[in-house]
Amino acid sequence: METPIAEELAKNQKSISVAEFFEKNRQILGFDSAPRSLITTVKEAVDNSLDACEESEILPDIFLHIERVGKDNVVVIVEDNGPGIVKEQIPKVFAKLLYGSRFHMLKQSRGQQGIGISASVLYSQLTSGQHTKIISKIGHGKPAHYYELMINTSTNEPEILKDDIVDWDRPHGTRIEMEMEASYVKGRRQSIYEYLKATAIVNPHARITLIEPDGNEVLFERATDKLPVPANEILPHPHGIELGTLMKMLRYTERQKISPFLRYSFSKIGHLAAEEICKAAGLDPDTDPHEMTRDQSKKLLDAFSKVKIMAPPTDCLSPISEDLIYKGLEKEFNVDFIATTTRAPSVYSGNPFIVEVGIAFGGELQKDDRIDILRFANRVPLLYQQGGCVITHAIESIKWKQYGLNQPGGGLPAGPVVILVHVASTNVPFTSESKDAVADIPEIQDEIELAVKEVSRKLNRYLNKRDTLKKRREKEIIITKVLPKMAKKLAETLDREIPDINPVVAKVMGNLLVNRIVESNGNGGVNISIRVKNFSGKKQDFKVHDMVSYEIENAVPEPKVISMGSNFDYIWNLSVAPESSRVVKYSVATLDDSEIARLPSLIVEGLDEELVTGAKAIKG
Amino acid sequence: METPIAEELAKNQKSISVAEFFEKNRQILGFDSAPRSLITTVKEAVDNSLDACEESEILPDIFLHIERVGKDNVVVIVEDNGPGIVKEQIPKVFAKLLYGSRFHMLKQSRGQQGIGISASVLYSQLTSGQHTKIISKIGHGKPAHYYELMINTSTNEPEILKDDIVDWDRPHGTRIEMEMEASYVKGRRQSIYEYLKATAIVNPHARITLIEPDGNEVLFERATDKLPVPANEILPHPHGIELGTLMKMLRYTERQKISPFLRYSFSKIGHLAAEEICKAAGLDPDTDPHEMTRDQSKKLLDAFSKVKIMAPPTDCLSPISEDLIYKGLEKEFNVDFIATTTRAPSVYSGNPFIVEVGIAFGGELQKDDRIDILRFANRVPLLYQQGGCVITHAIESIKWKQYGLNQPGGGLPAGPVVILVHVASTNVPFTSESKDAVADIPEIQDEIELAVKEVSRKLNRYLNKRDTLKKRREKEIIITKVLPKMAKKLAETLDREIPDINPVVAKVMGNLLVNRIVESNGNGGVNISIRVKNFSGKKQDFKVHDMVSYEIENAVPEPKVISMGSNFDYIWNLSVAPESSRVVKYSVATLDDSEIARLPSLIVEGLDEELVTGAKAIKG
Repeated sequence: METPIAEELAKNQKSISVAEFFEKNRQILGFDSAPRSLITTVKEAVDNSLDACEESEILPDIFLHIERVGKDNVVVIVEDNGPGIVKEQIPKVFAKLLYGSRFHMLKQSRGQQGIGISASVLYSQLTSGQHTKIISKIGHGKPAHYYELMINTSTNEPEILKDDIVDWDRPHGTRIEMEMEASYVKGRRQSIYEYLKATAIVNPHARITLIEPDGNEVLFERATDKLPVPANEILPHPHGIELGTLMKMLRYTERQKISPFLRYSFSKIGHLAAEEICKAAGLDPDTDPHEMTRDQSKKLLDAFSKVKIMAPPTDCLSPISEDLIYKGLEKEFNVDFIATTTRAPSVYSGNPFIVEVGIAFGGELQKDDRIDILRFANRVPLLYQQGGCVITHAIESIKWKQYGLNQPGGGLPAGPVVILVHVASTNVPFTSESKDAVADIPEIQDEIELAVKEVSRKLNRYLNKRDTLKKRREKEIIITKVLPKMAKKLAETLDREIPDINPVVAKVMGNLLVNRIVESNGNGGVNISIRVKNFSGKKQDFKVHDMVSYEIENAVPEPKVISMGSNFDYIWNLSVAPESSRVVKYSVATLDDSEIARLPSLIVEGLDEELVTGAKAIKG
Repeated sequence: METPIAEELAKNQKSISVAEFFEKNRQILGFDSAPRSLITTVKEAVDNSLDACEESEILPDIFLHIERVGKDNVVVIVEDNGPGIVKEQIPKVFAKLLYGSRFHMLKQSRGQQGIGISASVLYSQLTSGQHTKIISKIGHGKPAHYYELMINTSTNEPEILKDDIVDWDRPHGTRIEMEMEASYVKGRRQSIYEYLKATAIVNPHARITLIEPDGNEVLFERATDKLPVPANEILPHPHGIELGTLMKMLRYTERQKISPFLRYSFSKIGHLAAEEICKAAGLDPDTDPHEMTRDQSKKLLDAFSKVKIMAPPTDCLSPISEDLIYKGLEKEFNVDFIATTTRAPSVYSGNPFIVEVGIAFGGELQKDDRIDILRFANRVPLLYQQGGCVITHAIESIKWKQYGLNQPGGGLPAGPVVILVHVASTNVPFTSESKDAVADIPEIQDEIELAVKEVSRKLNRYLNKRDTLKKRREKEIIITKVLPKMAKKLAETLDREIPDINPVVAKVMGNLLVNRIVESNGNGGVNISIRVKNFSGKKQDFKVHDMVSYEIENAVPEPKVISMGSNFDYIWNLSVAPESSRVVKYSVATLDDSEIARLPSLIVEGLDEELVTGAKAIKG
């Protein structure tokens, strides 16, 4: 009998350590080029610092130093004032992949995978052959522990090369130093500087100091001393839980009956809901969870959707807020228009999530390029893999024509627009461990689309209004330039006085026409009428200001008077129906001709400039 | 003293099993939606079958059955005629993540990570709560082993729920059956059908049978019985190796001296190169590798680039080949033009890779849409994450205007074009474990760009030529339609004979003008001259055929004569300088007027139709 090939092949079958796996596939962790490797490292370290400070309610103060070493290498130092790490945990936190505190917690945090910083340590030792150096101190009077570490890649366990106590002036915090093949780049979106700037926008409570390789110091100062509202840990919600997960929970629970199992394992299940679920599943509430078959578990799962259960709690999430997104965009870009929205929380596969979107338009943004997208997940800026991200896919899937933007050749629209999207979740579904792109989860894509459409509708209204005003303005310029010339020419030809063409202009423009008519009363005084005719086709409410240096008499109706040094501001509140006029009258005791000639323009407050002919307009 | 927060936080620190990690982050493995989950599963199973058959030099025969179960679930069955798996390995191969035979091998294969099929088992148990059922048999007379398996996610070890021997009619092979929440979709690129079709194109030696959920059977029959040339395993090449990797190799080698260490650990290092490297590094060739410091290792690494070492062997790769890509595109698309290229092998981080590209244009492809991209890595079609793939990024970065295609708004060009790109490597750097997109490795991006530009230049030449011919044709149609009418009108007006305008047409067109002039010799016979005038501006070589029913006499020059039944083909090889003429003369003994009137057109062989006026042209 032949020797089966399978026996030959079997000789090569073996276990792969997760460290070996990522050593070979480090591009999955975000180490695929020299600039990106550095950004990934800084990102992981800063994310950890921000998370640790947030959990400990410390205002973060992060110090970042990048030095060039030799031709291809840099040394990265990241130091924070966080809570520090207890001695026993230091080696595993930094030198073991898949080790962490936030993996099993259902709440929003930056790091969730237990891979990040140890991936940087792995990359550092792979490319530089150097140990990673850690100092950590957990409080006043506690020692500062110094470690030099590597990862044993065949076992994925830490190798401790030095374990010491050192002097360190911080009361608490952590410092990490590592050398790696990497490069520091400037002047592009995908850079340390831009990552920190974007981080500062959505984490205004953090202070970050960066020392660049050339010695230049950049300070991202905190804009507020208020810590963000901390996210709370929650229990899983019964909606979206999967059969396999439920079976595992049933198998490992400490409860002896289904009813308490349900109440203590899930959020939003109380006594009543637990009873109802058991009933809907056709199960005795006293059934032992450990004894349940697959079929019984399936019935229990199906019952979750038959019984009314409240939506999951959302204090496990910490959105940026509409206001902060608005301020961030305003500070960052010089634009004409901003709209923001924070959607109501939603759920995918049992994980609560929130989508927030801001849109900025015009100003100094590039007119002809494709729009810019700023992506964030759990308050962390996403710099790479834009094309592979559900945020991009959601924006691309919108028909932008109907929101006033071109979309040449499909895909991203073009125009002077920035869209900021933040996805916050207890479990952001990244497409890979490098956490650069969010996966195409249908529920998340839908929420992003709805949010982007919401702010885009506002943008569209703004654009429409701007267009209308612009068209009016063009029309008015033509009319106000051409008509007077025609009138003048006509007057000259006929040897007559130049007629007042304002009423014609107002009528053509559909405007509010304002006139001040001054008539002498024969004894050094004047009677003045202010006439307002409304050609605009709808009722207009506004104020008329006459800011003059004299006192008025016999005013009908009575104005409000504000004394302004030697001047007076007389103010009338008027409301004029379409095609109607209002007249305000008053007299002045003495007013000579030169004073009459120098009377200032009337001011209409509360209407757009484009709506008013014959007076200045302020929107107020 | 306060209790440090760090101690509170430390309580939550723990190890995460790789199975738990992927259970929570299953989107990373390609399980983010119901249709994609099924495609991922089929892909992993089929890839494994193809790899196993290739290693064992078996022509693959794969049977795939998908059945709907209940509302949201399907059962997937994949059965192959591969070598089978030895009993002891079955549980780990299917129910342990990061376990496999191809991870440490330096050669091209579809599966490399040791994650694929066990990820499907994980997803199956999570969503259906069911065991995965395996049958495997390694040869005639050997038992067929039946297993029911699950993964214990907290330990990432297999749980064996049944271990049996069954009857199975195949001589060898493996069958896997699993139930999962998934859906079968049709009629779009991202579907099982399209995945199999694309797989068949680049694996013409495989037969794949698919039974769809509605019972419909689809057969992808093999197109050849020839197995692809198997890829050979190689040693790592010294170029691109990293310091950390070198240090690890030095530490764990069985050799006691550097010189043999170098020769037996790397490809392309012989005795001489090893000596030279030691010399360049300033190291004694007898140094014990295990004793070497980081600095010595660094010197050794630097020496690799100082000494001439041959490029890595490339028999570790198995490209599809230009010819097969051409045939694949030709079979798949009805197009006007195809060009293909297989680049020379290149290296990134020590991993050899080859890029192959095919471009197809016109025919029934959509004119106005963005171009289609067919991506392959190690002969596996990539269906998802197109926007996050270096293949797409490389194509987007090309300025397509210069190759004759529009690129509205930047990004992918538009036009009736399909581009197929295959990246083959001993280690394809995927962006995630779902293996849907290749990472942005600069070396790979460069090679793809060069390859795409190469075929695009060919496309551009084709388009230019087509354009020139089209323009000539339009010009000629105008001239040949308008001029005769003008001539006729002129003749009528002047009451003169209609002039022969062919010389004018030929001159305007820059053509070769061909005339046959027949003159009576007075006694029933004729003298015939064939005149060819070359207006084309360059020397033209061609053959003139006069296919007539009579015998000719006194021909100058003498033609070649081919007798064709009752006809003769008289052939003259002519070469005419620009602006020159050639005349061929002969006489015919008897030829009456009606015969003269019915003389067939002369034929010019060897020139484009558009170049010839006054005769038929065949390219020959």
